[in-house]
Amino acid sequence: MAAVQPPQQITLYTAKICPYAHRTELALAEVGVDFTRYEIDLQNKPVWYAPKVNPASKVPAIAYGGPKAPADDPSPESTKIAESLVLVEFVADLFPNSSLHPKDPVQLAQARFFIEVVSSKLVPGWASFVMRGESVDQLLAGFEAIQDILPADKAFAVGDEVTIADLAIAPFLARAEVAIKNDIGKYKAGEGVKAYEIYKSDKFSKLRNYFERIKARDSFKKTFDENYIKEVFAKRFAKN
Amino acid sequence: MAAVQPPQQITLYTAKICPYAHRTELALAEVGVDFTRYEIDLQNKPVWYAPKVNPASKVPAIAYGGPKAPADDPSPESTKIAESLVLVEFVADLFPNSSLHPKDPVQLAQARFFIEVVSSKLVPGWASFVMRGESVDQLLAGFEAIQDILPADKAFAVGDEVTIADLAIAPFLARAEVAIKNDIGKYKAGEGVKAYEIYKSDKFSKLRNYFERIKARDSFKKTFDENYIKEVFAKRFAKN
Repeated sequence: MAAVQPPQQITLYTAKICPYAHRTELALAEVGVDFTRYEIDLQNKPVWYAPKVNPASKVPAIAYGGPKAPADDPSPESTKIAESLVLVEFVADLFPNSSLHPKDPVQLAQARFFIEVVSSKLVPGWASFVMRGESVDQLLAGFEAIQDILPADKAFAVGDEVTIADLAIAPFLARAEVAIKNDIGKYKAGEGVKAYEIYKSDKFSKLRNYFERIKARDSFKKTFDENYIKEVFAKRFAKN
Repeated sequence: MAAVQPPQQITLYTAKICPYAHRTELALAEVGVDFTRYEIDLQNKPVWYAPKVNPASKVPAIAYGGPKAPADDPSPESTKIAESLVLVEFVADLFPNSSLHPKDPVQLAQARFFIEVVSSKLVPGWASFVMRGESVDQLLAGFEAIQDILPADKAFAVGDEVTIADLAIAPFLARAEVAIKNDIGKYKAGEGVKAYEIYKSDKFSKLRNYFERIKARDSFKKTFDENYIKEVFAKRFAKN
């Protein structure tokens, strides 16, 4: 499929490892738009990145519009936009004919409520177990909170089409799965695999089936490099 | 002005004291829509509230649509929607001709970025100083973060019209002002007034002028009862 042209040029500053940045990559892939991708090395950020793109020095960020310019020297006339959820909404607003924003305001509110549960339950659960080696219970509680609000009879978070809700959760489910499956994380050796067995049990089949439908999409395949994520995490959490 | 009729009935569960609920009241007042208002006593929540409206037992929540029913016995057929920012976006989506969602996707992204700064800087600053009596520096840093992103030449957060961004911040600025002006909070006596003097200094004139423009609006006057907020806070934070 030929790439869609954006109303104005889009330059995305991103990092393959980062779940937040991954959200924006998924959104751009879903709408099939042409954009310039610039990988930021988070361990060694270019000196121009904070002053010229994002004062908070985080990914993702987008430089939108302005005259043609190299990604590493963006025009001051382009608008710089940061924060993953802001960008996912922005991509949805730029392409109102995509499914990312459901047309029904109630369904759109349900998508945003789903994202709120991702932010308040799943992301903290992922961070506390994998990143800080705290109790697995928070991660499992995050899985459960999401599974509880998944509709029984729909393919995706709020209906049969992909919306901003699915893009907000997918990068975190993907990284959580890779981490626990391979027992990689700040936790004690063996605790990841134990969590993975629970995740693979009947208890979470609804959540897993939902995630499988996201993984089957081209947008996910194009933007998620499992081996790369596994290697970077393995190095970061190498047990001494 | 006659009230606008909503596409389907709106019942709002709210509490005058709560800044989150206040956001939704502001949104409904800005679009001038007819709705049923039900005050929830947060110190003594009705037993039906969690099972019938919001399992998280928080305000705000909206029951939308469904057959006619009393607010304290809402129909299972109405859709229940919770979370203040979800609801502000929902009201904006229901009334696309209001100014709440700017038509320009870039401006809309800027409004959502502004809200992100409110959530990550101003709200934590307010909670840490007033609610927990921690250092005033976080509240002042929150004021500063907001002032830094206010445009120099526009009336409101992202332009000359009120948007979701202004509704997200106003309830917190309003309560912060009442608290420190009256030296009410978990902090040591005198610290609030000291913070108020800094807030009233030239340093924060841009922020104050912005907030004055919000306070001058009918939507704010109709939804904010300064004396009530002051009395409730005074009781809550009464020094022994």
